[in-house]
Amino acid sequence: MQASHRQIEMSIFVWLDSTMSKKPLILVTNDDGISAPGLRTLIKVMNTIGDVVVVAPDSPQSGMGHAITINSTLRCTKVKFDDGPQTEYSCSGTPADCVKLGVHEILKCKPDLCVSGVNHGSNAAINVIYSGTMSAAIEAGIEGIPAIGFSLLDFSWDADFSSIESYILQITRSALTNKIPESTVLNVNFPKCKKEDIKGIKICRQANAYWIEEFDKRQDPMGKEYYWMTGEFINEDKGEDTDIWALQNGYISVVPTQFDLTAHHQIQKLNSWTF
Amino acid sequence: MQASHRQIEMSIFVWLDSTMSKKPLILVTNDDGISAPGLRTLIKVMNTIGDVVVVAPDSPQSGMGHAITINSTLRCTKVKFDDGPQTEYSCSGTPADCVKLGVHEILKCKPDLCVSGVNHGSNAAINVIYSGTMSAAIEAGIEGIPAIGFSLLDFSWDADFSSIESYILQITRSALTNKIPESTVLNVNFPKCKKEDIKGIKICRQANAYWIEEFDKRQDPMGKEYYWMTGEFINEDKGEDTDIWALQNGYISVVPTQFDLTAHHQIQKLNSWTF
Repeated sequence: MQASHRQIEMSIFVWLDSTMSKKPLILVTNDDGISAPGLRTLIKVMNTIGDVVVVAPDSPQSGMGHAITINSTLRCTKVKFDDGPQTEYSCSGTPADCVKLGVHEILKCKPDLCVSGVNHGSNAAINVIYSGTMSAAIEAGIEGIPAIGFSLLDFSWDADFSSIESYILQITRSALTNKIPESTVLNVNFPKCKKEDIKGIKICRQANAYWIEEFDKRQDPMGKEYYWMTGEFINEDKGEDTDIWALQNGYISVVPTQFDLTAHHQIQKLNSWTF
Repeated sequence: MQASHRQIEMSIFVWLDSTMSKKPLILVTNDDGISAPGLRTLIKVMNTIGDVVVVAPDSPQSGMGHAITINSTLRCTKVKFDDGPQTEYSCSGTPADCVKLGVHEILKCKPDLCVSGVNHGSNAAINVIYSGTMSAAIEAGIEGIPAIGFSLLDFSWDADFSSIESYILQITRSALTNKIPESTVLNVNFPKCKKEDIKGIKICRQANAYWIEEFDKRQDPMGKEYYWMTGEFINEDKGEDTDIWALQNGYISVVPTQFDLTAHHQIQKLNSWTF
């Protein structure tokens, strides 16, 4: 049976399209919200590499960890923030929701890469576990999508992201070329310093550090008590192979991060327990 | 200088108190909320082992992952639900918040054990990463407190927890005797079956499984679109050493779970990349 003119035209169109467009499809998200300068920087850099679709939270979602919205509804609206070529969606959910919605409802396919950030503030050491930025990257990793989370050690809304643009490009290109290993996502943190003071890129392990919380107890106008959580970051890990050491010494830290939480090395010990 | 009668009395009192009270101090929390039957079961069992302080969310917090409240305030109220000897607090925050507040503001010391659950529903395989129940246990682990998360594979509010009470007791006693290894928390899941059909306890690894999301798009009364997230759980891991295998075959699964997310085995490979 012969193919119709229309079928041949369609086949040529699909072939041309796949041949000519070699640019990777990149899903971009963050946890500081769709208007955050860190996200705008990441979009700008990714536009030079691939076709960019943004699905980011409509409001700040810092500290959301790997929360997902299962008992409530989600909204998602197409928006336009600047003249860039990217397509953008603002989502009412958490960073992990944004990735799920982006992949399964907006793109309806797996992108070639998912990048999250640039976070305004550190996601080094134990912060990775509380981080919405890293949860988005980890969610993509769970879905088999190569993923990188980027963070700058500057909480300020006016943080200077221009100094790290070339490094974001360099790390992303290297990740696309070398391919991020399966079941691994990259956690990239940038020190807060001038571009010329950055000493290089170090592959690190997550420092063994933690927060000691303090609760600031106050009274509301009705006399009822409430708390603000505050805390002090404690790093007792003296290793020079950690992300904290790298950042304190002017390096960009790259930690290969996993989502298999099994402590495999403890299985044998637990098998010796009697129940 | 001689001690006063009052000082001597106080010293004897403190000595007697520490000698006579050998019971461990146990912090209990969950993610289904303070009124959940799963939590009430856990409190009942823990009351037979130690001195129990409950700090649990005032509303359901399922799927909250490791979210913490950093941009808002927290409320915490002393409450009484039944005639048990435990002390209880209802907290407006996430499960991880409950542990932080419980340790640093309520107890002002590290308890001997933190238990979370019993969750109404599975926290096996990748569910551990979305789980508020496990995040509470992991938060305690980060703070150096021995911790166990318990979950029953039954989402129903009326789930039958009576069949697993003796196993919770058995596993908790074993954990207190054998001591949970450092930087490890236990993720315990119970199959949904009669007590007599439970085949035993298996130490497992987390199965390599994931969710494929679907988004149910609807229109609100104003004609605006919104979504409900739904999903299908996919397990392609055929290993007989996984939590999913154990649960499907009538065993209680115990997975040693870690919070160092470094993929240590990938550091060497990443060091071969050129940037």
